[in-house]
Amino acid sequence: MAYRIEKDSLGEFKVPQDAWYGIQTARAVENFPISGRGPDRDFIRAHVQIKYAAAIANCQPDWLDESKRDAIVSACERILKGEFLDQFVVDRFQAGAGTSHNMNSNEVIANIANVALGEERGKYSPINPNDHVNMGQSTNDTIPTAIRLAVLAKLPRLTQAVEHMAAAFDEIALREQDTVKSGRTHLQDAVPTTIGREFAAYAWSLRRAKQNIADTRRQLCDIGLGGSAAGTGLNTSPHYPEKVAAELAKLTNEPIQASNLAAQMQSMLDLQTLSGQIRSLALELTRISNDLRLLASGPRTGLGEITLPPVQPGSSIMPGKVNPVMFEMLNQVCYQVMGQDAAVAYMTQAGQLELNVMMPALGSALFDAMDWLTNAMNAATDKNLKGLIVNRDRCFTFIHDSVGLATLLNPQIGYTKAAEIAKESEKSGKPVRDIVAEHNLMSREAFDALVLKAARDGKID
Amino acid sequence: MAYRIEKDSLGEFKVPQDAWYGIQTARAVENFPISGRGPDRDFIRAHVQIKYAAAIANCQPDWLDESKRDAIVSACERILKGEFLDQFVVDRFQAGAGTSHNMNSNEVIANIANVALGEERGKYSPINPNDHVNMGQSTNDTIPTAIRLAVLAKLPRLTQAVEHMAAAFDEIALREQDTVKSGRTHLQDAVPTTIGREFAAYAWSLRRAKQNIADTRRQLCDIGLGGSAAGTGLNTSPHYPEKVAAELAKLTNEPIQASNLAAQMQSMLDLQTLSGQIRSLALELTRISNDLRLLASGPRTGLGEITLPPVQPGSSIMPGKVNPVMFEMLNQVCYQVMGQDAAVAYMTQAGQLELNVMMPALGSALFDAMDWLTNAMNAATDKNLKGLIVNRDRCFTFIHDSVGLATLLNPQIGYTKAAEIAKESEKSGKPVRDIVAEHNLMSREAFDALVLKAARDGKID
Amino acid sequence: MAYRIEKDSLGEFKVPQDAWYGIQTARAVENFPISGRGPDRDFIRAHVQIKYAAAIANCQPDWLDESKRDAIVSACERILKGEFLDQFVVDRFQAGAGTSHNMNSNEVIANIANVALGEERGKYSPINPNDHVNMGQSTNDTIPTAIRLAVLAKLPRLTQAVEHMAAAFDEIALREQDTVKSGRTHLQDAVPTTIGREFAAYAWSLRRAKQNIADTRRQLCDIGLGGSAAGTGLNTSPHYPEKVAAELAKLTNEPIQASNLAAQMQSMLDLQTLSGQIRSLALELTRISNDLRLLASGPRTGLGEITLPPVQPGSSIMPGKVNPVMFEMLNQVCYQVMGQDAAVAYMTQAGQLELNVMMPALGSALFDAMDWLTNAMNAATDKNLKGLIVNRDRCFTFIHDSVGLATLLNPQIGYTKAAEIAKESEKSGKPVRDIVAEHNLMSREAFDALVLKAARDGKID
Amino acid sequence: MAYRIEKDSLGEFKVPQDAWYGIQTARAVENFPISGRGPDRDFIRAHVQIKYAAAIANCQPDWLDESKRDAIVSACERILKGEFLDQFVVDRFQAGAGTSHNMNSNEVIANIANVALGEERGKYSPINPNDHVNMGQSTNDTIPTAIRLAVLAKLPRLTQAVEHMAAAFDEIALREQDTVKSGRTHLQDAVPTTIGREFAAYAWSLRRAKQNIADTRRQLCDIGLGGSAAGTGLNTSPHYPEKVAAELAKLTNEPIQASNLAAQMQSMLDLQTLSGQIRSLALELTRISNDLRLLASGPRTGLGEITLPPVQPGSSIMPGKVNPVMFEMLNQVCYQVMGQDAAVAYMTQAGQLELNVMMPALGSALFDAMDWLTNAMNAATDKNLKGLIVNRDRCFTFIHDSVGLATLLNPQIGYTKAAEIAKESEKSGKPVRDIVAEHNLMSREAFDALVLKAARDGKID
Repeated sequence: MAYRIEKDSLGEFKVPQDAWYGIQTARAVENFPISGRGPDRDFIRAHVQIKYAAAIANCQPDWLDESKRDAIVSACERILKGEFLDQFVVDRFQAGAGTSHNMNSNEVIANIANVALGEERGKYSPINPNDHVNMGQSTNDTIPTAIRLAVLAKLPRLTQAVEHMAAAFDEIALREQDTVKSGRTHLQDAVPTTIGREFAAYAWSLRRAKQNIADTRRQLCDIGLGGSAAGTGLNTSPHYPEKVAAELAKLTNEPIQASNLAAQMQSMLDLQTLSGQIRSLALELTRISNDLRLLASGPRTGLGEITLPPVQPGSSIMPGKVNPVMFEMLNQVCYQVMGQDAAVAYMTQAGQLELNVMMPALGSALFDAMDWLTNAMNAATDKNLKGLIVNRDRCFTFIHDSVGLATLLNPQIGYTKAAEIAKESEKSGKPVRDIVAEHNLMSREAFDALVLKAARDGKID
Repeated sequence: MAYRIEKDSLGEFKVPQDAWYGIQTARAVENFPISGRGPDRDFIRAHVQIKYAAAIANCQPDWLDESKRDAIVSACERILKGEFLDQFVVDRFQAGAGTSHNMNSNEVIANIANVALGEERGKYSPINPNDHVNMGQSTNDTIPTAIRLAVLAKLPRLTQAVEHMAAAFDEIALREQDTVKSGRTHLQDAVPTTIGREFAAYAWSLRRAKQNIADTRRQLCDIGLGGSAAGTGLNTSPHYPEKVAAELAKLTNEPIQASNLAAQMQSMLDLQTLSGQIRSLALELTRISNDLRLLASGPRTGLGEITLPPVQPGSSIMPGKVNPVMFEMLNQVCYQVMGQDAAVAYMTQAGQLELNVMMPALGSALFDAMDWLTNAMNAATDKNLKGLIVNRDRCFTFIHDSVGLATLLNPQIGYTKAAEIAKESEKSGKPVRDIVAEHNLMSREAFDALVLKAARDGKID
Repeated sequence: MAYRIEKDSLGEFKVPQDAWYGIQTARAVENFPISGRGPDRDFIRAHVQIKYAAAIANCQPDWLDESKRDAIVSACERILKGEFLDQFVVDRFQAGAGTSHNMNSNEVIANIANVALGEERGKYSPINPNDHVNMGQSTNDTIPTAIRLAVLAKLPRLTQAVEHMAAAFDEIALREQDTVKSGRTHLQDAVPTTIGREFAAYAWSLRRAKQNIADTRRQLCDIGLGGSAAGTGLNTSPHYPEKVAAELAKLTNEPIQASNLAAQMQSMLDLQTLSGQIRSLALELTRISNDLRLLASGPRTGLGEITLPPVQPGSSIMPGKVNPVMFEMLNQVCYQVMGQDAAVAYMTQAGQLELNVMMPALGSALFDAMDWLTNAMNAATDKNLKGLIVNRDRCFTFIHDSVGLATLLNPQIGYTKAAEIAKESEKSGKPVRDIVAEHNLMSREAFDALVLKAARDGKID
Repeated sequence: MAYRIEKDSLGEFKVPQDAWYGIQTARAVENFPISGRGPDRDFIRAHVQIKYAAAIANCQPDWLDESKRDAIVSACERILKGEFLDQFVVDRFQAGAGTSHNMNSNEVIANIANVALGEERGKYSPINPNDHVNMGQSTNDTIPTAIRLAVLAKLPRLTQAVEHMAAAFDEIALREQDTVKSGRTHLQDAVPTTIGREFAAYAWSLRRAKQNIADTRRQLCDIGLGGSAAGTGLNTSPHYPEKVAAELAKLTNEPIQASNLAAQMQSMLDLQTLSGQIRSLALELTRISNDLRLLASGPRTGLGEITLPPVQPGSSIMPGKVNPVMFEMLNQVCYQVMGQDAAVAYMTQAGQLELNVMMPALGSALFDAMDWLTNAMNAATDKNLKGLIVNRDRCFTFIHDSVGLATLLNPQIGYTKAAEIAKESEKSGKPVRDIVAEHNLMSREAFDALVLKAARDGKID
């Protein structure tokens, strides 16, 4: 493999001849052979958007001249169009605060710009990675800002996936609004309800979680870019924080604005808040996935109230078995999302004085959580929820079996006597309707009507 | 010990003669000898407020008559005034969903009401715990609603404690806005900053966390009361959900309203969201407490930039030692709060079908987190933050030592040459200002002026 | 309230007249009004045992004379017999490292000793809390050692509770070793198994978790007592670490020995390891409790393979309902135990240089986890597992319904053809045995025999 | 792209023409587009080892004939040598329990074997994936066993990395056994200690954590292979569990043995125990990394007791800055490891009845934790710990500054008077040695000698 030699304040180091990155990236590749996983795509883009916006904001007298600005902007544009993505090569576990990724961007952009200007890679002239591409910037402010921009890019995909699933639940709820079934509390026979009520409640909870996630957007748009080193704004051009924020707002179409520069460098609160809201979604999805798998249990030895469409044979040994694999997959992703959130929490509290150096891994944990959960929800919705079948007969059978029906007698005969009827039903195995009739409390038909009414009444959305 | 005998659907059971509670409470006391910790005070009150409001809402023709309503309401008022609190005796780890606590309330209220009407305890006539006190209610809907009301009661105490601490930070920041000091990133010498900027950022982050906590209030006011069993609203009086919500709004002065009754029984999302936001606060507090303890380290072998007022001798063996005990205590509380949140998360995902039976412990974990954190923040603010002294001389000494000052030369001589100066300073031990002068880059005085300007210019929002 | 005035290096402070504790305890009571929870009983005892052992170990020429030793030892003995427990009054969230509790012990012991010698409380002569009761000791080494001794005291109670539950599972497994039932994997119909196999596996897993917990004992017996301040052993009497360990071994009947004194002060590894093993147990118990509640679901609309004995009426509104409250309670305790473990983990990583100041809360979290889990397991075993009834008919019915029976045909007709039979059964609703007979693959009787054989043959260790 | 058509019980499906996998794998690729991450290498190998061992164990009359055995074994050998690894293509988040990966192995092996026998891909004759490659096996027993074998392969790499780091600490400790420094407790000046004692304690704790990890090996060797479906051992050849375990023992050189087959399918305890022990290590490493970064803080505005060798320039904006990037990276990895452990814990409790379907993601989380932590420790040790420099002068300066030296006066003048000296030193800024001399308690020289003795005397095990 051919190399070129570059030099930095620590001395000389080999860089692959055809690499668009430079010495500091090459050092980082050697220093951090940890996970083998390069940076997230949205994060690469977001960081390059910052370089782009900074070049425009810095184009002021005595700062960045127009030709340098244009060279940097053109280089960034090529990356944003999808070129050079394989040049972002530093492991997700890297230098604290992400210095290595920042230098990776700076070096790649400088080399692209210089080559476009007729120079060669590794010379860093006329465009210098630190003095020009990184002008008025620091790892300290570009990395947390890039993490924010990356999650802002991911956010609508995630909320759309939630809405997609909620809509599928709503569709079932509407279709099955009159499908009566036995409620279960404590997993024990309870009073009659409907599939409609049950599934509409799933949609309701998911949308609430979605809204909470979406509500983090405003805070995520408050950026600390312009704080440069240690949140002080040292070495930044006039009005830089406002200017660069405005450029980023244009580039991203988000209401990006400058915020408390020191706080946004010290504190990962906004990102952690997002992580927390995603965890909340994952907890709801865990519960709902568990419910669906329980309702689909059987076909003979379980509840069997619903059937999830088969997407693959269920077992390598048990022929004909079909397992609820899509929601099992979703369960697994949710559990890993809780793990990602636990990691984010640990990293959030690890900030010290002017900086939180755990940012690169914090960002990575969050990126994965968002992408994986988005993909998992979409797959589960499309491949399983849309084809979900409610076994109405089965639901109907259960409702008449349920000992919980005794509750309907409370207003007429009181809790204590109703309890005796429930007990008689449980011991004898007789349905409540028969006992009610035998005790001359009500005809079987009147009781059945009461059951249906009970199941269908009393919904407030 | 004297007993009376009561009877329920499982048979007879002994109840202490002078207990205002009844058989189901007595069974629960025997069943659950787990933690020895009785219910939270705010939770007792909240649950009794529900009984109060329900009696009023149920006072309709063919439902609860006025005399029964008045008897129940009077009994509730006495409890709300602070009587009978020792009659709420069921362990925090109890029957799933909190049936035992619900019956504890029902029985105590019924007995108080009946005795007031000239009857005796244990007879449950004319007021019956299930048929009258619990009319149209269920453990399923009263317990989660009571948990919401209890946290709503605790919420302003918690947010006030945050504001109290943030204000103390702001006061220091204002006082020390011109106190220059060396910034530290990666715990390494960085560029000059001020105590003002640093501490104002603490206040900023805390207020942001506070706002996020406060923002959960609206969702917490959406209650599922009226869902009775399984969220169906079975056996509830006409327009009960709206009526009972309106009564609770009056009693609590919060905008309580009826919500999706089935969802609010299935899902603990809103409570878990609150827990998550409290965790976020605890993570910020952990970071800030760690910073304060680090800045206060020494007096001789640490940073020593601040002094926390001594509140007690620091060591049983090292004479004269003073430790930052208030923030150590706050750190410990924050870690336990993270534990409470982890418990809440696990319990949130454990809902099954129509109900989450983990509610009693979920509520308890959240109650403790809120109370302990409120108390801990107030104690740390009052006993330590208010008397915090900034050692300005020490701060000032550091700033001139810092190798990070080389950064100020970037605009003039570029990153690469500035790095050589930094290196020279580190190796030789000479301050940057001397090297700058020796290289004829700037006079010592001009450099000092630059340093002060750099430190003070940064933006504080 | 009457007070006496005491004085320490910070000045004068009021102490309740009749308190056996002194000024530093009184300061701590004022400083830490956090949870209202005083120290754990086993921890109080353990710390006093250390004071007892230290007095004996320090009784050497030029160190502690015999009369002082005897006075201290007598005071300790009274506490160990149960006197003065109400004098240990510092909140669980207190001074980092537990200085306040250490001084609470030192002061109470000194006052008891001095009063016994005819002096009065608050004078600290002839016995001084720091110079004599705390001789050669530090908060730094007595608190972590006391936490170890306290968990060692709790350990056998916890492991006995596990064994108690495992034995109950074994008893059921033995009784039901021939009770065939349908296995369920992915909650879907699977091949035949037995209650015996299923429940014996529960016992097996619990015992494995128990063994792992018990195996932490050896490491927990390695103590850092003798490290005094900062693990250096400064100001300790000759051969103190070995002598005091030997005394403690006598007092506790555990193989206590001196270990790496500096490491045991820096590192909470051994306690965290115990916490982790308890979490493992809690995770297994969560799974098993969930299984039992699922197997007990119904009676009509669930699986209903087992019945858990009722211990209280299940619902305030649904008459006759019986809920699996004991295992719901166990579930809740397990979730809180996971929260305690999360807190312990956070606190473990928070050690800094020579000390981990989070110890008091770390110990408290662990103590609660152990006590609550012990109590919860015993209650669930005694009140529920011992009376558990297996509904053999129900199990037997399911086995013949299961589509999973098609697997038994693999060896004869191969996976692909067996899958067709499974599919035919699922679609038509016909039992596999009928289809097998119709296809002339086997008689119904031969198939039934195969099913029974399959269920019973599997290996149970 | 060219396809072939294959068929299974759900119908026809396209498989890439040149794929060695088959229809079920192709379905899974379509079903699970979640993370884009294929299986772990050690896991691929481990699962193929099981297929190899099973073919040998099944080679019995009426079971697998010798020619089929040889064909399967040869195919497995090629994979184990590193061929075909790109044919294992199912996402880490996949069908519950790992059916898709099991079928991926079965199909690839069958196709390789059949092609070797002159047949073509996709025909599955003479070797059938289910009937022959999967003979007597199930996803239920091969996947958890493969996870065990994979972690057993990773285990020595991890423990060697711990030993490697511990040895580096020991080396420093030995070299610096006489380097006196000020101890710090609560981050406050404490009594004298040595770098030797401090760093030896790090080594001690790491080795203790290592031993606990290594001790899980025995339990991990107990496998449930032979349980086939639902732990029953259905459709397995005579003495299969023992035979296949013996083969695996040969292949892996580990004491593999058959265990409780049902329990090992229900319970993930052993894997979770390993995860817990790895978390314990990560917690210790977090603490130690934090300490090193604190001791290396500065060079001027921090403690500066050690210097970590620079591996790359530290800042994109602050010239000459060198950051402790290797330990920052290790910190980040440790936090993610805690996240992986949280995910594993959640998945462990999610087992239901005969199976835990969360296994694929559970295994993946554990694999990553082990690999990343191994790599991170080795990188930090090799690139940073080995070149660590102790700044002895700085350490020595601190020791004479420390107010904690007053403790040395306790035996001579008692705690109370020593506290006054400490206070005088703190207020006046005078070193303790000067005050001691002024009070005629001791000469400066005598005091210095006492300090050195105190620092060096402490016990190091």
